Amino acid sequence: MILSTDIDQYGGQSRVIIDRIMPCIDGGLFPAKRVEGEPVHIEAHVFADGHDTVVAALQYRQRGVEQWQEMPFTELPNDEWEAFFTPSDIGFHEFRVVGWVDHFRFWFEGYGKKLREGQNMVVELQIGAKLVNEAADRASGADAYRLRQLAAELDNETADTGWRSGVAQSRELFLLATRYPDRSRATYSAPMPLLVERERALFSSWYEFFPRSWGDTPGRHGTFREAMRILPEIKDMGFSVVYLPPINPVGRKFRKGRNNALNAAPEDPGSPWAIGSADGGHKSVNPELGTLDDFRAFVARVNELGMEVALDIAFQCAPDHPYINEHPDWFMWRPDGTIQYAENPPKKYQDIVPFNFENPDWKGLWTELKSVFEFWLEQGVKIFRVDNPHTKSLEFWHWCLTSMKAEHPETLYLAEAFTRPKRMYRLAKGCFTQSYTYFTWRNARDEIREYVEELTKSEVSEYFWPNFWPNTPDILHEYIQLGKRNGSIARMILAGTLSSNWGIYGPAFELYESEPFPGKEEYNHNEKYEIKSWDWDRPGNLKKLIARFNYIRNTNAALQRTKNVVFADTDNANLIAYVKKTPDLANIIVTVVNLDFNWTQSGWIELPLWQMGIGDHESFRVTDLFSQDKPDGAGLDSFTWTGRRNFVSLRPGTQQGHVFLVEKLK
Amino acid sequence: MILSTDIDQYGGQSRVIIDRIMPCIDGGLFPAKRVEGEPVHIEAHVFADGHDTVVAALQYRQRGVEQWQEMPFTELPNDEWEAFFTPSDIGFHEFRVVGWVDHFRFWFEGYGKKLREGQNMVVELQIGAKLVNEAADRASGADAYRLRQLAAELDNETADTGWRSGVAQSRELFLLATRYPDRSRATYSAPMPLLVERERALFSSWYEFFPRSWGDTPGRHGTFREAMRILPEIKDMGFSVVYLPPINPVGRKFRKGRNNALNAAPEDPGSPWAIGSADGGHKSVNPELGTLDDFRAFVARVNELGMEVALDIAFQCAPDHPYINEHPDWFMWRPDGTIQYAENPPKKYQDIVPFNFENPDWKGLWTELKSVFEFWLEQGVKIFRVDNPHTKSLEFWHWCLTSMKAEHPETLYLAEAFTRPKRMYRLAKGCFTQSYTYFTWRNARDEIREYVEELTKSEVSEYFWPNFWPNTPDILHEYIQLGKRNGSIARMILAGTLSSNWGIYGPAFELYESEPFPGKEEYNHNEKYEIKSWDWDRPGNLKKLIARFNYIRNTNAALQRTKNVVFADTDNANLIAYVKKTPDLANIIVTVVNLDFNWTQSGWIELPLWQMGIGDHESFRVTDLFSQDKPDGAGLDSFTWTGRRNFVSLRPGTQQGHVFLVEKLK
Repeated sequence: MILSTDIDQYGGQSRVIIDRIMPCIDGGLFPAKRVEGEPVHIEAHVFADGHDTVVAALQYRQRGVEQWQEMPFTELPNDEWEAFFTPSDIGFHEFRVVGWVDHFRFWFEGYGKKLREGQNMVVELQIGAKLVNEAADRASGADAYRLRQLAAELDNETADTGWRSGVAQSRELFLLATRYPDRSRATYSAPMPLLVERERALFSSWYEFFPRSWGDTPGRHGTFREAMRILPEIKDMGFSVVYLPPINPVGRKFRKGRNNALNAAPEDPGSPWAIGSADGGHKSVNPELGTLDDFRAFVARVNELGMEVALDIAFQCAPDHPYINEHPDWFMWRPDGTIQYAENPPKKYQDIVPFNFENPDWKGLWTELKSVFEFWLEQGVKIFRVDNPHTKSLEFWHWCLTSMKAEHPETLYLAEAFTRPKRMYRLAKGCFTQSYTYFTWRNARDEIREYVEELTKSEVSEYFWPNFWPNTPDILHEYIQLGKRNGSIARMILAGTLSSNWGIYGPAFELYESEPFPGKEEYNHNEKYEIKSWDWDRPGNLKKLIARFNYIRNTNAALQRTKNVVFADTDNANLIAYVKKTPDLANIIVTVVNLDFNWTQSGWIELPLWQMGIGDHESFRVTDLFSQDKPDGAGLDSFTWTGRRNFVSLRPGTQQGHVFLVEKLK
Repeated sequence: MILSTDIDQYGGQSRVIIDRIMPCIDGGLFPAKRVEGEPVHIEAHVFADGHDTVVAALQYRQRGVEQWQEMPFTELPNDEWEAFFTPSDIGFHEFRVVGWVDHFRFWFEGYGKKLREGQNMVVELQIGAKLVNEAADRASGADAYRLRQLAAELDNETADTGWRSGVAQSRELFLLATRYPDRSRATYSAPMPLLVERERALFSSWYEFFPRSWGDTPGRHGTFREAMRILPEIKDMGFSVVYLPPINPVGRKFRKGRNNALNAAPEDPGSPWAIGSADGGHKSVNPELGTLDDFRAFVARVNELGMEVALDIAFQCAPDHPYINEHPDWFMWRPDGTIQYAENPPKKYQDIVPFNFENPDWKGLWTELKSVFEFWLEQGVKIFRVDNPHTKSLEFWHWCLTSMKAEHPETLYLAEAFTRPKRMYRLAKGCFTQSYTYFTWRNARDEIREYVEELTKSEVSEYFWPNFWPNTPDILHEYIQLGKRNGSIARMILAGTLSSNWGIYGPAFELYESEPFPGKEEYNHNEKYEIKSWDWDRPGNLKKLIARFNYIRNTNAALQRTKNVVFADTDNANLIAYVKKTPDLANIIVTVVNLDFNWTQSGWIELPLWQMGIGDHESFRVTDLFSQDKPDGAGLDSFTWTGRRNFVSLRPGTQQGHVFLVEKLK
């Protein structure tokens, strides 16, 4: 079509132009994401030449369904149109816009104007009769019969012209004739894709832990059956997703020792991310954790507690992974006959062998990798955390996840894409559900605000749903190294109130482990390489505080969405403040966090009251849901505030942040 | 492709992603516009998974040429790439991006890092030798020979490893091997269109006049031969385009009389826009103006003076146009057998019959209309002003102008699209060269600035090139009705310094005709409906001032572009100020206009010196090129200004505006 001079490539008799359909990601290559049950706002520019009346409709259908459903578009000023529709189910949908020049409506609207001008209406009535008869041809049954009657009345030269004008301007004629528009010259837009996710895609609280550290005997490799005992406590802390590092057999060749040592001691368990050994590969369970049956029992127990398991999928192999013998063509080989390990020169990762996505049997590789998700789905897992997706072919992901979501729309995928923004966003477009972010490295007020506004106010918000993590087994940020308990609380409040998806790696988080590997932003004695014995109930632990925090999230709908954040200005750069609200304003939460984990910080915050349904000089009640230890909310601090500017003071150790419920005074 | 689960629709072994190519209008449906001789800046996002080295190249070719030309892209931070290329000729071009993972470069870059780390390089040398031999396979002749030599040196186990490392890191090896990259798994973007226009598309000064008012005998219908006598004066005023209202036979049926009266007197000449009579239609000359030969002589005289003719093309018919008998199916007919005239209820335009673009013979109609442009092109006309294009099918225009520009890239089209913005912009996208604008209705400082920034700083500037008109035969704005001479001067300076394309309808403009038809923004005794006798040299006329103004435009390259405008803040809302500069800063113009046509206005303007190559505390010379009556520039007012803030004072009647040439002091 580009620069075509072929007349048949153009619209011909179709005069309506349809343009700028929203939401639209990269011209429709990727779906915009929405969540089930929420109305989708569709916009488009629809116009034609001349003065004729243009009408537009929205058509939509679930992927795989032949029949389009249809609803009218509403015309806004300046050739803009909008419609809201609520998809019936999760999964892929498509929608398109149809627009046409409506000669009946143009006649109907013009008739009244001409009549008021005192023009001679005789020919106008004949024109109308012809249009109404044409509508009758498109109708059937009683509607066709009645339209023909009305046309005959318009055309009845023996009747009084005034009476015929009454028919011409009647509501009945308008409603009946516009039901059968002439769409033979209508313009149809290209279909646009939409992905409707289930609620947990947008609202989730993740708890990551290593089951092998939870055996009955301290220091010995734990099993699924043994680790089950901590699940009720995870549930009590209010989490909804239990995320396990890879559960597959751990490679023995080049196994890493404690603290990532080049050589492992015989008793070292190795990194769970070095997948595959004589015991099996991506579809096998590490026998030290138990059997596949044990895993299924673990999943069942998690589900019984109202939570879900998220499994870590890491598409890479230990050098003794069975794939290497079965599919040598899926890997790169060096001239000396050794396999090519992962590298980022001069760094080498000899315990990890990457797949070669350029290999000629790429279809075999892609299909096998997709079948890994399918295998675990059969074991009851519907949520996957994908390790380093940005080091695997991006086109592979686009195909794999589009196919998985088409077949299993209930599955969710969290991308561990700690990489440059364009790759991170590309993964989200097609079709990772959630993504890790740069949140960990945004610690000052203005950089947090700028980043969250990029994620929530730009086009990015159409497809990229963040999941904020204060810590991970890979990342112990300096803020937590230095801030310890107070710093951890600050990061928790920020993560779980800014983003509706958040997660922690525990119990390192609850116990605010803060000892770094010297010179690095990583944990010392990292659990990735050894079995830990955690003193989970150590005095000062954050378990009750986390429970209280997740209780607030679980009971306040405003915190269950991310895009709805609006920042409030503060006059002290150590204080960050923002509002979240439900569309109907039934739930409004104002969060204020002291970013300084050492000293009391005070200042004025300026609330955007006009977005909260509160007058600029009105008083309102704010209740700090985070102000005491009971998750049931009894005896909370409550204040009456007036107007936009109000004073806050937060003292680390006593109170690192407020999570205020805002209520209008009666 | 949308939501496809078909593995063959995806990239397969091609790992590079190409995204966000710029310029790109609506995903490549319409060409971005550029002007001949200027380098085109192309940007793209190019990236792949993993740590491998990605390389990208720009490919481009003129439309119809098979062979792509190629140049490297330069990598910028954050996966962004850019290239500049200068198209060889006017007309349609296309460009695309090719990106690939470059294993040789990755090896070459990694080699140095590993060497510095003291790693064992023996296997690395073998890998390199293999890659270089593969490059040799893609090369031929001496390059292939030399590459094989170099591979053998890398692979020479008997040689010293240090010496082999020298070969591995040699500039010769790098330059030679990267000349033959492995692009078997490269990714190619879709081609993007580009339209390169000749200079006059972007820099033009239009003078519109009615030849019939310039007969030898006052009050009698003038001819082309007679009207030729005023061409030298138009040239002296510095115009480059002589624009004539339609020159076709004027309809007699329902002809409008003076002041748009419903009935014409026998001697009334009618509106030139009511085209067609027994004397012919769109390919005929009104016999009152002369013959086709006379018109060709007129065109020749205009060209001889270094100007060009622009002809008005109005695709509508008087009720006696020959088309109506020849092609009754191209029109709409009413039930009483009469033809459907144009209407915008309750308004009727009985002297104008529109084409029915929904008629089944739309191809016949489109082809005939296109042939009208071709007919006048054969008579030597290369510029067309198109009347009301927004009341004709927008798809027709897209096809017609794409085809015309493909076959005759030298032709230019000015859209008289005084309509809603989306239609106006759509016409510009495909492929009107210039467009009338809302300039006439933007008279206050901030609304002028906002509108010009929309036209020059948003995506609109990629395809919409404005032409600013202070007046037209249809529009006498209240600003000129009230402002008369001073108001006209203000509008002239604004039009011709803000937009590189500007035009006037004369001599109404030079004589600042300001009498409106009562209650309207239109001229009384409009020349559209009668033959006028102009007293062109009436005292106070603006001819010399216009000559001086166009001389400034013609001799200052900064004013020959539109996008380069940067506004300067002023502390008096009656003063508007802006800078234009050439990219090399060789020519910098600062314009200041007093928008008040009655009173002296003074104030401070704050110049963006950092964009003008002048330090914030530096002094510089400003010379007002508009400050006296000689177009040769002798004896101009000149001031030394210092720093960003400087004072101006403008007195209507004496000086309505400054057009300063800015020069750094030696």
